[in-house]
Amino acid sequence: MRVGILGGGQLGMMVAESLLDLGVEVAVYDPDPNAPARRLANFHVGAWTDREKLRAFIASVDVITYEFENVDGALFKELLKATPLLPSLAVLETCQHRAREKDFLRQHQFPHVDFEVAIDWADVETKLETFGLPAIVKSAQGGYDGHHQYKIQSLSELAALRSQVQASTAFNQTWVLERVIDLWAEASAIVAAGQQGNPVVFPIFENAHRDHILDFTRLPAAFSSAVQESLKELANQVCKTLGVVGLLTVEFFLSKTPCPKSQGLCVDNTWIYINELAPRPHNSGHITRQACTFSQFDALARIVTNQPLPAPTMRTQQGYCMANLLGDVWLAQGKPELNLQPWQHHPEILEITLYGKKEARARRKMGHLIAHASTASEALRSADNFRNALSKPQT
Amino acid sequence: MRVGILGGGQLGMMVAESLLDLGVEVAVYDPDPNAPARRLANFHVGAWTDREKLRAFIASVDVITYEFENVDGALFKELLKATPLLPSLAVLETCQHRAREKDFLRQHQFPHVDFEVAIDWADVETKLETFGLPAIVKSAQGGYDGHHQYKIQSLSELAALRSQVQASTAFNQTWVLERVIDLWAEASAIVAAGQQGNPVVFPIFENAHRDHILDFTRLPAAFSSAVQESLKELANQVCKTLGVVGLLTVEFFLSKTPCPKSQGLCVDNTWIYINELAPRPHNSGHITRQACTFSQFDALARIVTNQPLPAPTMRTQQGYCMANLLGDVWLAQGKPELNLQPWQHHPEILEITLYGKKEARARRKMGHLIAHASTASEALRSADNFRNALSKPQT
Repeated sequence: MRVGILGGGQLGMMVAESLLDLGVEVAVYDPDPNAPARRLANFHVGAWTDREKLRAFIASVDVITYEFENVDGALFKELLKATPLLPSLAVLETCQHRAREKDFLRQHQFPHVDFEVAIDWADVETKLETFGLPAIVKSAQGGYDGHHQYKIQSLSELAALRSQVQASTAFNQTWVLERVIDLWAEASAIVAAGQQGNPVVFPIFENAHRDHILDFTRLPAAFSSAVQESLKELANQVCKTLGVVGLLTVEFFLSKTPCPKSQGLCVDNTWIYINELAPRPHNSGHITRQACTFSQFDALARIVTNQPLPAPTMRTQQGYCMANLLGDVWLAQGKPELNLQPWQHHPEILEITLYGKKEARARRKMGHLIAHASTASEALRSADNFRNALSKPQT
Repeated sequence: MRVGILGGGQLGMMVAESLLDLGVEVAVYDPDPNAPARRLANFHVGAWTDREKLRAFIASVDVITYEFENVDGALFKELLKATPLLPSLAVLETCQHRAREKDFLRQHQFPHVDFEVAIDWADVETKLETFGLPAIVKSAQGGYDGHHQYKIQSLSELAALRSQVQASTAFNQTWVLERVIDLWAEASAIVAAGQQGNPVVFPIFENAHRDHILDFTRLPAAFSSAVQESLKELANQVCKTLGVVGLLTVEFFLSKTPCPKSQGLCVDNTWIYINELAPRPHNSGHITRQACTFSQFDALARIVTNQPLPAPTMRTQQGYCMANLLGDVWLAQGKPELNLQPWQHHPEILEITLYGKKEARARRKMGHLIAHASTASEALRSADNFRNALSKPQT
């Protein structure tokens, strides 16, 4: 069996490793010749619009999955023919476009923050006046880690943004206006849905972002079990409604106060909103590599090869915390190769994974670490302390 | 950093994956174009005696480690030049040759079963008469999983073997004669010794062989803690005496009765003998992938990249069991691809790893599984039951 992966970043690489462990052949497609998956055989380098290279890639495999969402749906529809894409192209097209995603949530009455769609930046400017401020404005496509995402407090702030946005291709594309909620916590759930049905859900992750980039994920989450069960149930329902075969990550906002005009699901005085959907492995799911009986990557590998998938559980009743290692850590050390000497005295840091990216830049995801302790709070403290110890020049 | 691995079988492949997770470049050398590591970039295919291909491989990396021991020491001495080999060529040359290995143990007074060296098969025939029967006869080189290994009960049995042995290259090579001990149990210990010293030892594994091939490994071992401490201490001492930087696997025989002429170490009425040494990851160490805070493969990856290495510990106080999946399981199912459907209802089988070998043959190591339960005995029962369920035609 030959499995193709669209995208050779860290997520694609970790899926590939899980596939290799199931004995299959793997091929990866990525535009960047220096992507982490360059270190695997059958690494295809080509643009996302290169019809001939994509065609050759697709012809070389039996089934395809992806770590990357921003592909041209129409082009893939033409090229895929009989080769299965998991999750399907229909799922991908819904999730890759923030307006379609939000419309899906509204149409199926899943809890979400009130929003409005604008067809371009001029339309954003028009609609914001009646939508009301403050608001979050997000491009419908190509946004991640805070790219093309702005919190607008006043119309003068909005006016000041125009020249910046005008310089980007997003200016003439679809935007989504969202209400600002009183955010109490963030969570995510990963559903793994096999080809034979019976989706299973990983334990609920509690996430903390910093500057729009995931900073920490911890397990178990500190929410009540009723809240956690609701999150799992919502994720399951979304997965079923979308018809996902593969992984679906559902990101949630949690608030302790209701948000005007928004239909949150209220459980234990906590208002739950679905923020966004990703039909693929997710940064927050890295923690499953250590905390769970199998990882999100193993789950996807089993699904695409049509192997059975029992429900994942926690390995122990203790706590785990994943912390991202951004290029800033490298810049703080001041050398191209990260010095990991502080690891010697920290056996509670179970894993440090480095992605093999050639250049460390600020805000670039270069690796992650996973700490283990008696509780999730203690694990978070360990992860934070250890990362701080790494983030300085080493002697 | 670029790391080379000699041997692209399952052990080399799993070392490679741990190295990839540390962000480094990996190259693998193997004579078999279908070896599991064919699925990695920088896979070099060449004979173990191909000077030019080996030279090119060595020139492409900064440091080399190995999963395969039967290389020509003199050739590698000439080719390696300044490229470090971990563990060193001196360690490899001692461990790759059963007579040198046994001499090392005797010279340094490590407990071992009494033995004698014969320079060829004719010498075996001469010496066995005075050495005494029953005896085990093993070729000094190229033996594994029971190849060129015979238990001789009578001189007529010995005579009957001559024509069979004569057909092999081992006939004119060195053999070792060993006393037969009253085997009670088998164990192994893996020492991981970093470039800065401070070796660490994995928990002691309890092994069961079947037809000379490792069948089960379980953790924790059922031996008294005094016995386990002695095994760890012996492994550590052997590692230090040999001067290993890298992994050293020490295999032990345990007996409840003393063996004539052999100097076993007696602890808690258990006689301990070192059976053999392997300066590389070991089949019994697969269990560390699930049972320990990091695996033998992670340990070797950290050592060759000169990263720190805290002591590995058990992930939980419960039990784990690794069972090999030989080609016989495929043959019993009767199809080229293994059907894993029984896995659906067995979440206690944490891991099934398949090596991606193209042809399933009887006795060939094709994969392994790891079970988890409240105790090691329970995990062994689960592993055994599950493997039995796999080893029949699937509906």
